[in-house]
Amino acid sequence: MPNLKDALALAASIAQGETTAVAAVEAALTRIEARDGDVRAWKTIQPEKALAEAAKRDAEAPRSPLHGVPVGVKDVIDTGDLPTGYGSPIHEGKQPAADAACVALLREAGMVVLGKTVSTEFAMRHPGATRNPHNLAHTPGGSSSGSAAVVSDGHVPLAIGTQTSGSIIRPASFCGVIGYKPSWGAVPRGGLKMLAESLDVIGAMANTAADADAFVQAMAGRPIAATMPAASPPRFGIARTKAWASVEHASAAALESAAAACTAAGATVTDVELPPPFAEALDAHDVVMTYEAWRMLAHERTAWWDQLSPALQAVLERGADCSPESYAKALKIRSSCRHGLKTAFADVDVLLTPSATGEAPEGLDFTGAPEFNRIWTFTGTPCVTVPGLTGPLGLPVGIQIIGPLGGDASAIAAADWLRPLLTQ
Amino acid sequence: MPNLKDALALAASIAQGETTAVAAVEAALTRIEARDGDVRAWKTIQPEKALAEAAKRDAEAPRSPLHGVPVGVKDVIDTGDLPTGYGSPIHEGKQPAADAACVALLREAGMVVLGKTVSTEFAMRHPGATRNPHNLAHTPGGSSSGSAAVVSDGHVPLAIGTQTSGSIIRPASFCGVIGYKPSWGAVPRGGLKMLAESLDVIGAMANTAADADAFVQAMAGRPIAATMPAASPPRFGIARTKAWASVEHASAAALESAAAACTAAGATVTDVELPPPFAEALDAHDVVMTYEAWRMLAHERTAWWDQLSPALQAVLERGADCSPESYAKALKIRSSCRHGLKTAFADVDVLLTPSATGEAPEGLDFTGAPEFNRIWTFTGTPCVTVPGLTGPLGLPVGIQIIGPLGGDASAIAAADWLRPLLTQ
Repeated sequence: MPNLKDALALAASIAQGETTAVAAVEAALTRIEARDGDVRAWKTIQPEKALAEAAKRDAEAPRSPLHGVPVGVKDVIDTGDLPTGYGSPIHEGKQPAADAACVALLREAGMVVLGKTVSTEFAMRHPGATRNPHNLAHTPGGSSSGSAAVVSDGHVPLAIGTQTSGSIIRPASFCGVIGYKPSWGAVPRGGLKMLAESLDVIGAMANTAADADAFVQAMAGRPIAATMPAASPPRFGIARTKAWASVEHASAAALESAAAACTAAGATVTDVELPPPFAEALDAHDVVMTYEAWRMLAHERTAWWDQLSPALQAVLERGADCSPESYAKALKIRSSCRHGLKTAFADVDVLLTPSATGEAPEGLDFTGAPEFNRIWTFTGTPCVTVPGLTGPLGLPVGIQIIGPLGGDASAIAAADWLRPLLTQ
Repeated sequence: MPNLKDALALAASIAQGETTAVAAVEAALTRIEARDGDVRAWKTIQPEKALAEAAKRDAEAPRSPLHGVPVGVKDVIDTGDLPTGYGSPIHEGKQPAADAACVALLREAGMVVLGKTVSTEFAMRHPGATRNPHNLAHTPGGSSSGSAAVVSDGHVPLAIGTQTSGSIIRPASFCGVIGYKPSWGAVPRGGLKMLAESLDVIGAMANTAADADAFVQAMAGRPIAATMPAASPPRFGIARTKAWASVEHASAAALESAAAACTAAGATVTDVELPPPFAEALDAHDVVMTYEAWRMLAHERTAWWDQLSPALQAVLERGADCSPESYAKALKIRSSCRHGLKTAFADVDVLLTPSATGEAPEGLDFTGAPEFNRIWTFTGTPCVTVPGLTGPLGLPVGIQIIGPLGGDASAIAAADWLRPLLTQ
């Protein structure tokens, strides 16, 4: 039975002739058939296309360490052979002319596109139909709802996510998988339906840090981090940030428990006070996001306003109401925060915070608050959420690791080091 | 007769009821009918659509200072109602699902999309059919060939250009118009066929600095520079840069003559030595561009390699041969150059360099060398080329003004101040 929980192991089995890419796709389809009626994480699958692509990969030598692995592509990213709807009725069923750059690159690395995963509307707040595999009455988080759910539920070992506020880290935390948002700019965005250009990042959902790392490297077409584990225990800094005001018991307890596990395993864990500009980072992120989204979605809001959800209309209207001066001020705050990162990382390798305010909320209407993610999307620093802990409802609670700007290798190595320590 | 050489003046006439947007489109179509058989600058025009759009604008109150003005859109930018081919047979005739963000924004400002202008293949070197309106035996420059030519030849007062090396400034210089590349990031790129994400910039072709400024503000959906002229003569710095090795007499003489005119008009003109990292900027730009293009055009090179020109294949192969280490080094050089801009602009408001190595070369196969542009695309600083001078062949020779990072207002104000001084 092909291993749909570990992409590098699956590709190694395929390379060794123990299984095939076709068998992996068949196993994925069987799992989806059994489960997706409940989870509702896939937007579009065309099994015959995926099987044909897999057969071609089986007929050739491995192109990369992920050769033959089936993956899910978030439906805000163009695919030349599958419709791409951006989570909106405006674009429902539309067929792009070409693959997005990241999709073409993962295909070049020998991976097989199994299908498109459910996104919230334009990767903002209005939810899709997806449910949390750990408890169908709860949200999977958003906006990369389908991608988190399909990896969590063992449909495919890897899926693409995107993040403008907390759209990779939060759903990964809620669904109990690794979510990796690389440094801003790492993965090319051609063919992504952008939302806020200075914030949007393409990243990965996976079950291991090494898988997430390899996947992002494939989509970037270059090394970003390193699959090697940290040589010695990392130096962790606990940064509670202004988002701490909204923390729930589940996440506060998880952070405490993770810190204790780190210390017990020989790592240093110290409190880190972020420099003063960070106090304004949450507000400034909102200004940048809404201001840029109003401009980026100009076509949709001018031609199709009535087809936008009231939630998105409200976000866009906030962007319209923002003055150029407040946008300029928010960009200055970002510069100061980026400069301040030097101080924050002066004595630690990575920072540790909650990945979300708590467990996945009940119901599907609200995908959860991105408060613990927005600061790091704003600064563009790499983040990895590590699963393993659970909250009082028995749902997953992730721990977020943040690396310095461009320090993806530190974040991935620390996540790989931390992962086995987080069990309850 | 509607004024097709001054967009703000045309819009003012429309607002005052002296002419109409429909009359402007009709005049543009008449001029195109008379000239474009020779100039070959338009890729796609659907007159009935443009006339219908103009009639709608005439039926309402002005939305902006550019209301009713017909514009050309470079064919690497998506339009929801006109096919968009990216200058490549691969995408010939394909119809995007939506307008690019910048196109939706200019329509929101009341401008009328007249049609798509010829681009070189994917905005790289392989030329389109366009000829230089000043001498049909010469190249118009590239890659924004059609956009420079249609503004120069009086078809429309404004057209969109894009720049990754020298694709706005060089064709504008060759065709004798204002070309304005705003600071990197100023205009949202959703719906642009990107080539090298950390370099690509959307900008303007116009006949006046005020028009270029207003147009870019409309496409950005926010103030970038300022339409106000400089209060006093700017402080100019002459930066010859490493590109000086390739300068021809035409551009060297033009720079001398521009500097003399500035001094005579009361400005200070001093030589500026760029800090040491700039010596490596040209090489580093090439690394960044080719490395990123190999990744960004992954779909086209993996699925359609034989449909790429040999020139583009060669560029992409250089990108494939680049090591991740040399890319990382090139990014570091960029950081150092950006840091060094503070020194370069310590005592001057703007820098002055040639816009191109000389006049437009004869023939259509070679769109000219971007040597004087690549450094500033690399650093992301705003550039404006100012027309008015000519070379020994009687063809236009532009003078390039470079502002500090984010200092678009300085560059535009200096261009507006310099423009009337440049006549021969």
